[in-house]
Amino acid sequence: MAIKGKAVVAQSGGPTAVINASAAGVIETALANDSTFSAIYGADNGILGVLKEELFDLGKEDPRQINLLRRSPSAALGSCRYKLKDFDKNKADYERILEVFRAHDIRFFFYIGGNDSMDTADKVSRLARQTGYEMVVMGVPKTIDNDLAYTDHCPGYGSVAKFTAVSAMEAGRDTEALYTADTATVMEVMGRNAGWIAASAGLARRQEQDAPHLIYLPEAAFSVENFIRDVKACLKAYRRCFIVAGEGLRDGQGRHIAEVGGSFAQDAFGHKQLGGAGQALRQIVEQQVGVKCRYNNAGTAQRTAMHFASATDVAEAYMVGSAAVSAAMKGVTDKMVTLVREGQNGDYRSTTGLAALSDVANGEKPVPREFINAAGNGVTQAFLDYARPLIAGRAELEMGPDGLPLYTRFERHFVEKKTGKEYKS
Amino acid sequence: MAIKGKAVVAQSGGPTAVINASAAGVIETALANDSTFSAIYGADNGILGVLKEELFDLGKEDPRQINLLRRSPSAALGSCRYKLKDFDKNKADYERILEVFRAHDIRFFFYIGGNDSMDTADKVSRLARQTGYEMVVMGVPKTIDNDLAYTDHCPGYGSVAKFTAVSAMEAGRDTEALYTADTATVMEVMGRNAGWIAASAGLARRQEQDAPHLIYLPEAAFSVENFIRDVKACLKAYRRCFIVAGEGLRDGQGRHIAEVGGSFAQDAFGHKQLGGAGQALRQIVEQQVGVKCRYNNAGTAQRTAMHFASATDVAEAYMVGSAAVSAAMKGVTDKMVTLVREGQNGDYRSTTGLAALSDVANGEKPVPREFINAAGNGVTQAFLDYARPLIAGRAELEMGPDGLPLYTRFERHFVEKKTGKEYKS
Repeated sequence: MAIKGKAVVAQSGGPTAVINASAAGVIETALANDSTFSAIYGADNGILGVLKEELFDLGKEDPRQINLLRRSPSAALGSCRYKLKDFDKNKADYERILEVFRAHDIRFFFYIGGNDSMDTADKVSRLARQTGYEMVVMGVPKTIDNDLAYTDHCPGYGSVAKFTAVSAMEAGRDTEALYTADTATVMEVMGRNAGWIAASAGLARRQEQDAPHLIYLPEAAFSVENFIRDVKACLKAYRRCFIVAGEGLRDGQGRHIAEVGGSFAQDAFGHKQLGGAGQALRQIVEQQVGVKCRYNNAGTAQRTAMHFASATDVAEAYMVGSAAVSAAMKGVTDKMVTLVREGQNGDYRSTTGLAALSDVANGEKPVPREFINAAGNGVTQAFLDYARPLIAGRAELEMGPDGLPLYTRFERHFVEKKTGKEYKS
Repeated sequence: MAIKGKAVVAQSGGPTAVINASAAGVIETALANDSTFSAIYGADNGILGVLKEELFDLGKEDPRQINLLRRSPSAALGSCRYKLKDFDKNKADYERILEVFRAHDIRFFFYIGGNDSMDTADKVSRLARQTGYEMVVMGVPKTIDNDLAYTDHCPGYGSVAKFTAVSAMEAGRDTEALYTADTATVMEVMGRNAGWIAASAGLARRQEQDAPHLIYLPEAAFSVENFIRDVKACLKAYRRCFIVAGEGLRDGQGRHIAEVGGSFAQDAFGHKQLGGAGQALRQIVEQQVGVKCRYNNAGTAQRTAMHFASATDVAEAYMVGSAAVSAAMKGVTDKMVTLVREGQNGDYRSTTGLAALSDVANGEKPVPREFINAAGNGVTQAFLDYARPLIAGRAELEMGPDGLPLYTRFERHFVEKKTGKEYKS
């Protein structure tokens, strides 16, 4: 006997170009199955919206805005970075979540996020079971960092990879044209301790002379000495050097490169400022190699670059959202939808699978050694074969009359609070 | 009696998304008029290529590569930042340029660049006249900074404006979704002492709550005190703050903001490092307002962002290149082609005009006061009306099978050197 009732969908962590496409998959599939889902609420700013009982009725939003989610970056439901209390020491946060769900008769929880979110979802579900509250909890994967285990890749990665590659290609042409003045460029990219985004810049390099010439991933211990040698060799070969650096670069002792590379800095107040990995590399190039070095860091604009997103990524993001709802309707719970690769390069296809929330919560997937070249300064053909299909196709945009894209913003019809309690973190 | 003979085309200064479209306009129009132009050579890396006698025959390139220039960013002929000797004190560089032109019977020089380039072109032409060498010298405007006088706007500006606006819009949605963690964002943009690019971010703001909330241009003296007040007011109104900063921000005494804003820094070698304007603002927000602040700086990727260039800009860039050749065929010389705006917003059209090279060389066009709001922290409707037509339309791309665009790279069939001399700078 399948459960029926209201559903909550929430988005968590850093925005991506396609986390809204996943939300669209959840929302549209739930709205189309109203015999199971009596309502679908959005949690305002992720799990914080549940804790604060700030839920809004997505059935009251303009369906065109929901459809536009597929072509809108960032997190239209709102997101958060909120550290819940430790489940084993203090269940209060999880009990509060369940209290809100009970009060509103929420029977489905769709949580779009990374492994911390899957951990939260898993614990909420466990507590529900323990207290005899029947509900279904499903995870939908999301992270530009691409470091979730049990899934071939993560929605969000294909788009940041496509934007990173085109930016490296374009800025690389800049360095090529102006090598007599701007001889080197360091492009810093996101990814925290994982080098998947840095690696994706390698997709831009069709010929040996093309940027990026050097790519450094956090998975390979960074050596200042080797770096200087690499840059000098590159300048000798091509008269210019385009370098991509993952933000989380560390040396063999695990120290962040900004601590090692001579980019300690003190501000006017005497505070020690740790520059980014790219800033550290730039300083090394300028001071120890002796050529001018540019520094590019798109920052948050890289993860929300819908204007050059991957059509494949958008389609897959929608698919995992929709699949989570379909699985929930069959009574599946405590699972995250995964992406499963089928076929080889030429005929890449993907389908969905399922992984236990608790497994995903405790896993992580760094860039494997076989995707990094022997010198630790570039990627291998195996990586390119893995990543190439993920950036295929240009995602559609809905352009406004002003020459810029139109992106969803919800009206947020909040539902009346029912617990009679304020959440205190 | 019109001149006939060989032509040289050169690109100068910082690359843009459309300087190649201007080159295409020059090259294709010259190749189509071979009764006037017996050959068209590209100078390798701008004026340096002329000085070093490194010229390649564009008639030997694949016409598809020339056509692809319209859809290729950066400077396919190569560019340079090279300071010529002072004409009034030492004519050697100009004499060398003329020596190379004479040796190859070059009768046309098309120079695509900013006001320094127009100055160079003007002096070469003056020297040619003085020495009785008959030739035509035409300038083609180019600068993302949009600060050339005598032209309504500059090719290159519409595209950097479009990319800047979409990046502000997308990263602004990021700040909006994640304001509980990433409350403020500073986006630093190029433009040197001109605020045209910073201003263009204002195109992203359709509603008051939209990013960017605050825009600071070098034309308005920056006050740290007012800035802190602005940011606090913005946080109160919207719970988040998205700030755009022109790289050349200065205070009322003309000091760069990095010197004023507390972002002095010392590296490991004790060198004083002047951070960027955006870094300075970020430090002020974090230390003096007390909220987390992100820093985005696309760097050279902003000026070469062909993947989201303006179709209007590409068409105009081609048009000015082509118009320079048409004018040259009519015997016009010592002029830069300008863009002339016709019609109002709704029915924007542009045509070309002509301005004396010497006038352009000595002019500059900062953002006028009426384009900046009274508080000095945003743009006016008058600016938006000026800029909106320039970003209209998405430029075409030629996509490769690998999901990334195809960009021109020339084979460079160098012509035999004839002066028998090496250039020494």
